[in-house]
Amino acid sequence: MSFVNIKKQYIAIGMLLFVVLFFFNSKPAFQCQITPEVTTYLPTIYGITPTYARLAQKADLTRLSQTLMLVKNFHWIVIEDSEKKTKLVENFLKESTLKYTHLNVKTNSSKHSTASGVEQRNLALDWLRKHLKQSEDKRGVVYFMDDDNTYSLKVFDEMRKINKVGVWPVGIVGGMRVEMPLVKDGKVSGYNAVWKPFRPFPIDMAGFAINATLFLEHPNAMFSRKVQSGFQESEILKYFTKTEDLEPLAENCTKVLVWHTRTQKPSIISPSKLKHPIPPDSHIEV
Amino acid sequence: MSFVNIKKQYIAIGMLLFVVLFFFNSKPAFQCQITPEVTTYLPTIYGITPTYARLAQKADLTRLSQTLMLVKNFHWIVIEDSEKKTKLVENFLKESTLKYTHLNVKTNSSKHSTASGVEQRNLALDWLRKHLKQSEDKRGVVYFMDDDNTYSLKVFDEMRKINKVGVWPVGIVGGMRVEMPLVKDGKVSGYNAVWKPFRPFPIDMAGFAINATLFLEHPNAMFSRKVQSGFQESEILKYFTKTEDLEPLAENCTKVLVWHTRTQKPSIISPSKLKHPIPPDSHIEV
Repeated sequence: MSFVNIKKQYIAIGMLLFVVLFFFNSKPAFQCQITPEVTTYLPTIYGITPTYARLAQKADLTRLSQTLMLVKNFHWIVIEDSEKKTKLVENFLKESTLKYTHLNVKTNSSKHSTASGVEQRNLALDWLRKHLKQSEDKRGVVYFMDDDNTYSLKVFDEMRKINKVGVWPVGIVGGMRVEMPLVKDGKVSGYNAVWKPFRPFPIDMAGFAINATLFLEHPNAMFSRKVQSGFQESEILKYFTKTEDLEPLAENCTKVLVWHTRTQKPSIISPSKLKHPIPPDSHIEV
Repeated sequence: MSFVNIKKQYIAIGMLLFVVLFFFNSKPAFQCQITPEVTTYLPTIYGITPTYARLAQKADLTRLSQTLMLVKNFHWIVIEDSEKKTKLVENFLKESTLKYTHLNVKTNSSKHSTASGVEQRNLALDWLRKHLKQSEDKRGVVYFMDDDNTYSLKVFDEMRKINKVGVWPVGIVGGMRVEMPLVKDGKVSGYNAVWKPFRPFPIDMAGFAINATLFLEHPNAMFSRKVQSGFQESEILKYFTKTEDLEPLAENCTKVLVWHTRTQKPSIISPSKLKHPIPPDSHIEV
């Protein structure tokens, strides 16, 4: 009998070992469930980008889109300055992995000022209002983005903190290294602008973003052809805020996270000036 | 005795159950191991980028780095044209999530031609050869990238197909919409270049990439100050290949996936020309 008991003890130890192994082995499974992303709420950023046909257009759209691919919850509203949507932009957006809305409206060049982007940005705002009215989630941030500017990923993190209107410095603009709001005790007290410093908001388009719901609260807020050059930013901001209510972001407006870069206009040799004819290249999209 | 035997059978069944449970439970762990990325081999792309201090430098590096963040197995070799590494580039690279090597060498402007990037690219090649000699994996692709050019993500997929030297069109360069190798029956038969078409390889630096191991096989291959302007590409390519051996990529050189863009030089108002003094901004990095 004692022989049988000893054997049972071994069996019991064996079973215990299995139980231990069982739980030990399940560890990797538990570890796996920790991996999924943290589901903190991120308001949608609506990037509004007017664009027009030119030689460097696809290049500019390409590198901007590759930055936007790294921004979570981003919705790109691209508005062509053209009678019809072009195949280049249409195919480009289709091939991108971005969430986008493609619109088009031709600039009415006969009207007053020559400011660019007025009709395009206004059309985007019309679309946005309709979209927000239909959406369950009416929250979001509106940012006016040029297709040749440079945006650090960090500026998108900053603008998600906005309650009403947030501001930050813009590099290389208005004849300055950096044009920026001046901050005193956490509040915007003025600006360092030297180009038309008498503007109500001497800020570049890249230097602010607006809580999207404000566009529903102010249905008439839009850009205008009737104001002088450089006043578009002031024109839209006047509906929503005053200097003293602006929210200074980017470490109290001390960090440059966006740059008003411009792509140099390419100089192309006219085919008529060539000694030898060149092989046709019009079938190749540049 | 039969009673004891039955008990042992139960115990055996119980143990079997544990064994089954053990393997069943380990399933989630196996499933987890399926989720990670498919482990097809991707050769490392060594991007060699000379850079120099200027107002738009950080902007240009920022948007290029944000493209590179989307490229797998990428190693960025950034070489400053300066006596010392600058804080701007050093901090910029540290903050980036990229795999990088930071080097510096000042251009010797007294020497022969004024070609830019010669010393910087040669230093990078020295580093690369040492690195490959020490590495287990000597495979890879070498691509010479300017910090203000535009690179579609697709060009990196293309260059991983290279056996020796791959080529593709470059948009907006040499006075043309697109400068490109001409392809006949899957082979490069010539070029459409109009600027110095007599160059052995009338291709822009952005228009080719080279199998990294070729740099070990040809230890003397490097750039030179002793050649005339526009001949640097020909200078390096002569070590490795002939026109007829080039591998045409990007759908037989019919797609533009890189553009020789240039950032417009900003015009900054001199502080001496200002009516009112501006608040100090030298503490802000642009």
